[in-house]
Amino acid sequence: MSSMELFEAMHSQRAIRRYKPDLIHPKLIHQILDAAIRAPSGSNLQPWNFLVISDIPTKRKIGELYNKAWEFTFGDAKQPNDRLKSSVRISAQYLAEHMGEAPILILACIQTNGSPGNTLRGSSIYPAVQNLMLAARGLGIGSVITTLHTRYEQEIKDLLGIPSEVETAALIPLGYPTSDEHFGMNNRTPVELVTFKERWGNPWQEE
Amino acid sequence: MSSMELFEAMHSQRAIRRYKPDLIHPKLIHQILDAAIRAPSGSNLQPWNFLVISDIPTKRKIGELYNKAWEFTFGDAKQPNDRLKSSVRISAQYLAEHMGEAPILILACIQTNGSPGNTLRGSSIYPAVQNLMLAARGLGIGSVITTLHTRYEQEIKDLLGIPSEVETAALIPLGYPTSDEHFGMNNRTPVELVTFKERWGNPWQEE
Repeated sequence: MSSMELFEAMHSQRAIRRYKPDLIHPKLIHQILDAAIRAPSGSNLQPWNFLVISDIPTKRKIGELYNKAWEFTFGDAKQPNDRLKSSVRISAQYLAEHMGEAPILILACIQTNGSPGNTLRGSSIYPAVQNLMLAARGLGIGSVITTLHTRYEQEIKDLLGIPSEVETAALIPLGYPTSDEHFGMNNRTPVELVTFKERWGNPWQEE
Repeated sequence: MSSMELFEAMHSQRAIRRYKPDLIHPKLIHQILDAAIRAPSGSNLQPWNFLVISDIPTKRKIGELYNKAWEFTFGDAKQPNDRLKSSVRISAQYLAEHMGEAPILILACIQTNGSPGNTLRGSSIYPAVQNLMLAARGLGIGSVITTLHTRYEQEIKDLLGIPSEVETAALIPLGYPTSDEHFGMNNRTPVELVTFKERWGNPWQEE
């Protein structure tokens, strides 16, 4: 079992969007999922299911839907004032065109009672998704959280036989990074600029 | 800086709900928040803000609202068929009655455009909340993700001056665990029972 320091893993997790075709050993997939399920969920209900998809035709169909969703959302004609940095755009467009070729696709699902979701519902699935991605990073496996597929969620649910009361919260490709991808420090606004002390707007500083 | 192996941290993260009164050094709060902001968010927009609350009267008021929300949701008269295991119920009730006494309360907030939230919105805040809690665990500091406060979200936003277009996604108390609390293996349904291969309902097993 590989070993990595916690803070190193968190600080070097980056969106990795280009993967070698190398297979991922099922024992590592298990280790990744076994980390995912250690996350908290509301009342510990663990309302999650994970679909592990390696079947080539299935991945291809999901990839086609994902790419359509990408084109709809970020295609040039649709969003000339792109909110994505150009380096991220190139990488994300590459992923959109190659999603179906990732060695593994994981679809993180959340059981619902059929009521419309709200932000809080995500509190019972995205901590698990984050554990999943940190575990992958710890094992040297690249991943990225994506949600664009939900534009065609019904098509994906039909394709995979997912019941109507289940939501697909994230599509996470997994694969070993190509040589032009790298883990490492990511680009973030510093703590001091996003943290307040006692009250909104009151700057937080270490005393 | 303390050091802990990634998988050990994930596997030993537990909801810790009883805290010693000991203060947490601001450098550690910074380290915890600096882990939180390393998490991914949609288009890397980092739509988060964190309120760090140590002011005693402010904590007390938040604690009173939290306890009211707990009573409403889990009080005996309201939910005789309790979905919480009794050991968790005792611990969660303790927290409800003592939330305001935690050394630090962190309110994780997400900026919105004013539109109603959905599950997916959570994908840009709960990975950061999970990093925050893993970082705390790595430093020997207990935490638990709670969302019940949202029953009185408006009162809390008024109290803290939070703008209307900002949602409060999680209230996370932080403190060193009392001697009757412990980190360690948590209680989860195994991977094999929550994972499917290729298609919903198709059991997943390591080959």
